[in-house]
Amino acid sequence: MSVNTEISESFRLIQDEICSALEQCDGGAVFVEDLWERPGGGGGRTRIFRNGSVIEKGGVNFSAVYGECSEALKQQMHTQAATFFATGVSIVLHPNNPHVPIIHMNIRHFALSDGTSWYGGGIDLTPHYVDVNQAIWFHNQLKQVCDQHNTSYYPRFRDWADDYFYIPHREETRGVGGIFFDDLGRHEGNAADYEKFVLDVGRAFAPIYTHLMNENRHKSFSDDQKQWQLLRRGRYVEFNLVHDRGTRFGLLSNGRTESILMSLPATAAWEYDNAPNAGSAEDETLRLLRKGVHRAQ
Amino acid sequence: MSVNTEISESFRLIQDEICSALEQCDGGAVFVEDLWERPGGGGGRTRIFRNGSVIEKGGVNFSAVYGECSEALKQQMHTQAATFFATGVSIVLHPNNPHVPIIHMNIRHFALSDGTSWYGGGIDLTPHYVDVNQAIWFHNQLKQVCDQHNTSYYPRFRDWADDYFYIPHREETRGVGGIFFDDLGRHEGNAADYEKFVLDVGRAFAPIYTHLMNENRHKSFSDDQKQWQLLRRGRYVEFNLVHDRGTRFGLLSNGRTESILMSLPATAAWEYDNAPNAGSAEDETLRLLRKGVHRAQ
Repeated sequence: MSVNTEISESFRLIQDEICSALEQCDGGAVFVEDLWERPGGGGGRTRIFRNGSVIEKGGVNFSAVYGECSEALKQQMHTQAATFFATGVSIVLHPNNPHVPIIHMNIRHFALSDGTSWYGGGIDLTPHYVDVNQAIWFHNQLKQVCDQHNTSYYPRFRDWADDYFYIPHREETRGVGGIFFDDLGRHEGNAADYEKFVLDVGRAFAPIYTHLMNENRHKSFSDDQKQWQLLRRGRYVEFNLVHDRGTRFGLLSNGRTESILMSLPATAAWEYDNAPNAGSAEDETLRLLRKGVHRAQ
Repeated sequence: MSVNTEISESFRLIQDEICSALEQCDGGAVFVEDLWERPGGGGGRTRIFRNGSVIEKGGVNFSAVYGECSEALKQQMHTQAATFFATGVSIVLHPNNPHVPIIHMNIRHFALSDGTSWYGGGIDLTPHYVDVNQAIWFHNQLKQVCDQHNTSYYPRFRDWADDYFYIPHREETRGVGGIFFDDLGRHEGNAADYEKFVLDVGRAFAPIYTHLMNENRHKSFSDDQKQWQLLRRGRYVEFNLVHDRGTRFGLLSNGRTESILMSLPATAAWEYDNAPNAGSAEDETLRLLRKGVHRAQ
């Protein structure tokens, strides 16, 4: 195993690019930075956004950590390797306005002392109100990034996202999907090709999300629409705490809790058996939170 | 295996008693009842409180279900039995006023077709602001209930609660503890004795909690104290969704989601790296959320 400083440096630059683009687009807040060290090796640069003009709460986190593989890690990674290196950028942004969607992005690289290494990540969009045209636009952007590398990627990684970002106990998708991938280059393929692809996914994030911020930030909303947003955030909390493998692995293996839980919203709400009126925009959104509804065209 | 209608009828009566006592004490709201049937056998009576004078959101649920043991159930229960019967009462109440504590109570009976059966349950208290005298009073009430049956129960079940209601990723207890027990009568002891004990735990709930409601309901609070309450509710959500075995088992095994998640608050909040001022009441509460701090005297 070698600590790959080249890829972690590329990831760190992507964090910088994204933070600059989001600050400029938001216009009302700057990131607060928190540098931290991991006792077993490495550390991170957590950047937290709060009370912006558009983004109420969110994080754009970079980390590069290494050390001995714990038993939990060996089990999670299906390996007996002694040591690991992991680096990545993780983003979740919760906007103020219910018409601006929540977004999540992650790119990561993992290497083991047995010589294997791989890439993973994804981008997915969680609108509080599904706008079908925007969902299709979002998927088309992702398809373009994928197609520049391999036309098999988009359909494969879109379906993977549909399966991953799913809340079984609600029988709902988390949002309108996106792309998700893992283990790229672990068992097959050329690592350098996958590296380029993953870096392009990272670079695609800022233009995609700032476009969606600007499209929706000036739309007016009612108190009822704000309450609906809080209920949808409740679902986001449920997915992340009950199902998300990265979140659960981090929390259960002594990861840095505050960096992991930057994904949670400033506020969320729950109501017993909430059911929107038939034909309402909320009802329509629930109808659209199904696997395979949203696809690039 | 036999479907024990006597114990489930006792549990149903306890649900009635508790609901009446809470409605009378609260004075501002009545329970909304939802009767439901389980496709595989049995059903429940979910009762939801909302927008009361004291209780903002909560549930007092009764269920009695039976059927074939799923693979997940066999694994969870360490059994190869073909069929099961389970009945119980589950309560979580989230008050409006941050000076009124959150409370949880559960009593349950489980029987398998291999002839084994047992009791489980507990009561634990989660103040947003720890009042040491009230915590000790609460523990003394539980000790009295326990001591009427066996003086070994309170210390054993108090320590069990300290271990169970713990949030490792926060290094905090969920609240000031209480009692927790499981598998009573499964491997040893007299089932009839345990049944009497569990019913007494159920009957102790209403006098204990209505006392705490009345002690604290008229205390005034600031916006900052309300925000602190929402952050503490966030921790409650984290415990229930990440760690609570009953919640996770229910959600992952196709249980009735709305009844299980009645435990979540109307609203909750998260702030990155929130740290109260040294010496503040919030800081003092965090200092007291440690195992073994609260004990009957």
